[in-house]
Amino acid sequence: MSVTAAQGFEAAGVAVGLKSTGKPDVAVVVNRGPLRTAAAVFTSNRAKANPILWSQRAVQDGVAEAIVLNSGGANCFTGAFGFQTTHQTAERAAELLGVSAGDILVCSTGLIGTGDEAFRAKVLAGVERGIAGLSADGGEAASLAIMTTDSRPKRAVQSRDGWTVGGMAKGAGMLAPGLATMLVVITTDAVVDAAQADAALRHAAKYSFDRLDSDGCMSTNDQVTLMASGASGVAPGPDEFRAALTAVCQSLAEQLQQDAEGASHDITIDVEHAATEDDAVEVGRSVARNNLFKAAVFGGDPNWGRVLAAIGTTTAVFDPYDVDVWMNGVRVCTAGRPDRPRDEVDLSPRATRVLIDLRSGNARATILTNDLTHDYVHENSAYSS
Amino acid sequence: MSVTAAQGFEAAGVAVGLKSTGKPDVAVVVNRGPLRTAAAVFTSNRAKANPILWSQRAVQDGVAEAIVLNSGGANCFTGAFGFQTTHQTAERAAELLGVSAGDILVCSTGLIGTGDEAFRAKVLAGVERGIAGLSADGGEAASLAIMTTDSRPKRAVQSRDGWTVGGMAKGAGMLAPGLATMLVVITTDAVVDAAQADAALRHAAKYSFDRLDSDGCMSTNDQVTLMASGASGVAPGPDEFRAALTAVCQSLAEQLQQDAEGASHDITIDVEHAATEDDAVEVGRSVARNNLFKAAVFGGDPNWGRVLAAIGTTTAVFDPYDVDVWMNGVRVCTAGRPDRPRDEVDLSPRATRVLIDLRSGNARATILTNDLTHDYVHENSAYSS
Repeated sequence: MSVTAAQGFEAAGVAVGLKSTGKPDVAVVVNRGPLRTAAAVFTSNRAKANPILWSQRAVQDGVAEAIVLNSGGANCFTGAFGFQTTHQTAERAAELLGVSAGDILVCSTGLIGTGDEAFRAKVLAGVERGIAGLSADGGEAASLAIMTTDSRPKRAVQSRDGWTVGGMAKGAGMLAPGLATMLVVITTDAVVDAAQADAALRHAAKYSFDRLDSDGCMSTNDQVTLMASGASGVAPGPDEFRAALTAVCQSLAEQLQQDAEGASHDITIDVEHAATEDDAVEVGRSVARNNLFKAAVFGGDPNWGRVLAAIGTTTAVFDPYDVDVWMNGVRVCTAGRPDRPRDEVDLSPRATRVLIDLRSGNARATILTNDLTHDYVHENSAYSS
Repeated sequence: MSVTAAQGFEAAGVAVGLKSTGKPDVAVVVNRGPLRTAAAVFTSNRAKANPILWSQRAVQDGVAEAIVLNSGGANCFTGAFGFQTTHQTAERAAELLGVSAGDILVCSTGLIGTGDEAFRAKVLAGVERGIAGLSADGGEAASLAIMTTDSRPKRAVQSRDGWTVGGMAKGAGMLAPGLATMLVVITTDAVVDAAQADAALRHAAKYSFDRLDSDGCMSTNDQVTLMASGASGVAPGPDEFRAALTAVCQSLAEQLQQDAEGASHDITIDVEHAATEDDAVEVGRSVARNNLFKAAVFGGDPNWGRVLAAIGTTTAVFDPYDVDVWMNGVRVCTAGRPDRPRDEVDLSPRATRVLIDLRSGNARATILTNDLTHDYVHENSAYSS
């Protein structure tokens, strides 16, 4: 059900030919209220796509009536024409819904540089057909329409006492922090105001999408949007709401990791006993971005030296000769020296765990990543085609 | 001739079984003087191998009699025993040469974590056999002995009016700035003092090895060493010496790029009209480290959107919508919009050029990198074996 699991939302997913495969490629999610609370976090890439530039302004007042998303074209680096396309997308949706264009959010995903007249015509057709086809059980169709190289849709729902948080995500490659490259829409029927929604979303994103670093590449089109209808009539406490939202985001982040382009291992990097949480994140990210380490995991090689070499490039507090490393439960390195033999480590399961003990404090963090595989190279060497 | 092209140097390369292939694996280069000037730059990785820890101290006085290098084991993260191995290596060489151990530099390369008793015994045997086999034309043998996954040795010589600079390098993977992962030894018979040698080497490394970023991974064992014998009796001016040294380093850096593990394209990234040189370097490096861009080049796909997405992650001065990108001479993006059609770009040659015009100033920089290939993944997924 994803975005229509919570009361007060309708959604649709339609096919308008943006994808050469003929699969669904435009999604619409509408908030029927009574509240129209909205919050969003965006890519920190300075090269932002047109829909990002639009949505950043549209969400500033904490209100959104609907969101339109398309796959099959990023509408990024498409000039003034591309921005007008986004603008017209919002205006067309607003007109059909009888609301203000400033309350319509827009997201696009696909190849950068795609956004010509044919693209515009298809997106606008998608808005019309999507809004005509809105339904209270359209969440599944919407989650299919935002897929690009995803092999499966990503959906998550958390239900509490009388209220629900549900979401959908897409993003099988270009995953990186700040944010992982993806589009995410989360809806809730809880009664939350804009400030609460914004604070909860920033917390949830920090401990989910921001800790997923599949390939170190940062997108131009990332957007995570939260819309609250208040239709349940229940106003959960801030901590309770934040926890449910974070659970949905973490589930979606794990689904993104598990479906990352070409990956054969899902690697969880736990950094323990760091001096600060920032240190733990920096160390985990550095390992997550080390191509040599990632290729070694692909090859089933527990090459802990590459873990230590990656840690050595950080500014975190630690003594390079007082670090322990575990791989899948085997302590392969103690205090910067070899410990258990490499051949005790079994890297055949897809789920791989690396534990790094920095022995420098009491903070910790977990970073999710993937291995570097032939399939990753293959899928990304011919993306345009 | 490499390190024995300049007068006053002897070298040797011997096989002692550190490599399972039986190929040469220990090199010795001795400075017969009259000067014993030395300078070196080291990896900026905080996880430094034992020979780095040793050589950093040994070179501080600007004097070195000789350098011993081994492949087949990095002697990194091998504990106190590993440091003693490096110490004993220097002592054995010093004893045989009749000099002080504090004037012997040591380098190691190979798998991290390798440095047990068998390793020590082989390295010490290599010192003995290498010193017994020193000759004034041993440069070629030495350049072979430092190879790891290199497919060919790297050598460069620049001769000026009465004096010469020559060098050797190894390093086919794990290439990254500060430094590229590699061992480099450069010799000269010019008359230069320690301060001049140090200043010239830092400049030369900055504009050569530091601008090579094959895979973004930083080594624990990098060392670039310059030794000057003064045997020519010629004291070149600082600018003249620096230019010759830089030319040797740039040649070696290009050879490292052209032999990078698994690469099928040598990519030269020119960043023009940057506000500062630091900006130009940051932008070039960010593109050089973008796996999606590198995989696209491998696949012959001129995916300039990934170039812009990489630039967008930097802090450089630029307007994302006022940047031009050329690929192999074709302007594919003007002012953040598509320009010439992608299919005009021919990425079949190994030599690939990307030109980025930031339109923000008059500084520039060139970064060298490689594509991300199946062979890169393959070679690095089974390095230990």
